[in-house]
Amino acid sequence: MKLKAIGITVALAVAGSAWAATVRDEPIQPLEAAKVTNPGKVELGKKLFFDPRLSRSGFISCNSCHNLSMGGSDNLKTSIGHNWQEGPINSPTVLNSSLAVAQFWDGRAATLKEQAGGPIANPGEMAFTHDLAIDVLQSIPGYVAEFKSVFGSSRVDIDKVTSAIAAFEETLVTPNSAFDAWLKGDDKALNTRELAGYKLFKDSGCVACHNGPAVGGTSFQKMGVVEPYKTASTAEGRAGVTGKDEDRFNFKVPTLRNVELTYPYFHDGAAQTLEEAVEIMGRLQLGRKYSQEEVGDIVAFLKTLTGDQPTFTMPMLPPSSNTTPKPRPFEK
Amino acid sequence: MKLKAIGITVALAVAGSAWAATVRDEPIQPLEAAKVTNPGKVELGKKLFFDPRLSRSGFISCNSCHNLSMGGSDNLKTSIGHNWQEGPINSPTVLNSSLAVAQFWDGRAATLKEQAGGPIANPGEMAFTHDLAIDVLQSIPGYVAEFKSVFGSSRVDIDKVTSAIAAFEETLVTPNSAFDAWLKGDDKALNTRELAGYKLFKDSGCVACHNGPAVGGTSFQKMGVVEPYKTASTAEGRAGVTGKDEDRFNFKVPTLRNVELTYPYFHDGAAQTLEEAVEIMGRLQLGRKYSQEEVGDIVAFLKTLTGDQPTFTMPMLPPSSNTTPKPRPFEK
Repeated sequence: MKLKAIGITVALAVAGSAWAATVRDEPIQPLEAAKVTNPGKVELGKKLFFDPRLSRSGFISCNSCHNLSMGGSDNLKTSIGHNWQEGPINSPTVLNSSLAVAQFWDGRAATLKEQAGGPIANPGEMAFTHDLAIDVLQSIPGYVAEFKSVFGSSRVDIDKVTSAIAAFEETLVTPNSAFDAWLKGDDKALNTRELAGYKLFKDSGCVACHNGPAVGGTSFQKMGVVEPYKTASTAEGRAGVTGKDEDRFNFKVPTLRNVELTYPYFHDGAAQTLEEAVEIMGRLQLGRKYSQEEVGDIVAFLKTLTGDQPTFTMPMLPPSSNTTPKPRPFEK
Repeated sequence: MKLKAIGITVALAVAGSAWAATVRDEPIQPLEAAKVTNPGKVELGKKLFFDPRLSRSGFISCNSCHNLSMGGSDNLKTSIGHNWQEGPINSPTVLNSSLAVAQFWDGRAATLKEQAGGPIANPGEMAFTHDLAIDVLQSIPGYVAEFKSVFGSSRVDIDKVTSAIAAFEETLVTPNSAFDAWLKGDDKALNTRELAGYKLFKDSGCVACHNGPAVGGTSFQKMGVVEPYKTASTAEGRAGVTGKDEDRFNFKVPTLRNVELTYPYFHDGAAQTLEEAVEIMGRLQLGRKYSQEEVGDIVAFLKTLTGDQPTFTMPMLPPSSNTTPKPRPFEK
């Protein structure tokens, strides 16, 4: 720690880009803001992300379950889909999802682009088809012009749609949390309790899975290592993708970035509070029974992972034309 | 018109505030941007407008049916409420609603503030109660601090909630349409067809009801004056408020501002296109059968009523606390 402190003093003196050189050597790395290379594509993707016309009902958009006003989640145990269907799993946050090894709790989509097509066509979610969604978009002059401008062709297809949505999602990174400031050398960014919480989080083994810039998202792990996890959820996890029995109840380790905002917790949304989640994780994954004070310390640390939320102007969606297929919310 | 043209020339010469003095003498007046006197209250109201925790499910916010990315409407025939219930009436746009004589199609709320409490407690819409909504907000530290800052007291009540929502809604005015530019003297703001459409709109009597800055919203009128209106809707209109038989099928005249964005049309949302709406209105209200070209002219004029849409940063909602009552989307 002494050496680090010296490093920081130097960085303070030279400031600017030299700062990065003094990042503390920890299992968690600071988040950096996304670099936007194609702003037109991001803007188109943002519109699509907010557009409920990508659903059969005309009512559900990506933002319905990944609400960017609420930490990129819906804060529900499991989500509400077309015709008020109860979803089988908790909606993971879209924030920092570009840093994950794969998408969905079971990792069945390799990329954000691949993921984006899923809910549109899922009968329990947006309940549309890719073809029908494309028919809708192709009938909207404002969209056609934007696709032409971004992709050089006014032919809308699902590949372009999901590529634009993914480009927008890649911008949804949340840098500048208190913990990042601490990682970058600001000793005052965390208070004593938060630091104690981080030390305990690290020393008791949470970082074995919750590591990297996203504090998770880099591996699949069994839910219930030391003790089995009791749940009403029928989700099988990674086994549904690999077909391997040893992957049963293996789920993608969720990011803990902004975890203060993404309640309730776990793939089944069964843990309502951070305290509950920490207590259960300690017991089931590490065989450790944290005291109430220890739980409070770790929760205090976890709340330092809330970063700058994406700030942007609410998008205006181009209006439908007379030929746009009509939404069918109540048709059986 | 000669005198007006002279007035305009003068205005062009002196510019600036003198411009307003030369507004054309028409049954429609230009919209002026809302003046924000209490930005903190507007900001709080914006958050509440976007917050689905004001609904029983935690899924439906004011913005769900009055979507500010889509002309302040949901672009559905009738809206989707709690548990996917089919609403009885088309959601009117929230844009420029502060200019209306009363709120809801039947005018049962005198003010925006009074209106704002309606959907929260309507079992077919957000399906909550005012008391439960207040319990939720009172449990959220970020909201409590904002209520304290805006109202001088950290006690949240429905009066403050609806007052803040109304303050936000009062800002949702859409000035600077092409038609406003023309009203203010810019002869080039409308093309020949748009001008012909406006002339026809005026001369054939549409302005009897669609007048004023909002091009409507100032009176209740019978739907089906010359010919009865055939509809599957059971909405009775103003009679439900006054109890008078002569008020049956009297509805508030909708604003035509941004009408290009607020499809489908009429209280039952039965007219899918502007062309259809104009044709039916001419026939039923005025006993006039417009030719296809005349309909096209009027539609061209109507599209000049699209103004600047409200532009604002997507709000970040303060997170729930451990004591916040949980949303109950699927509980019967």
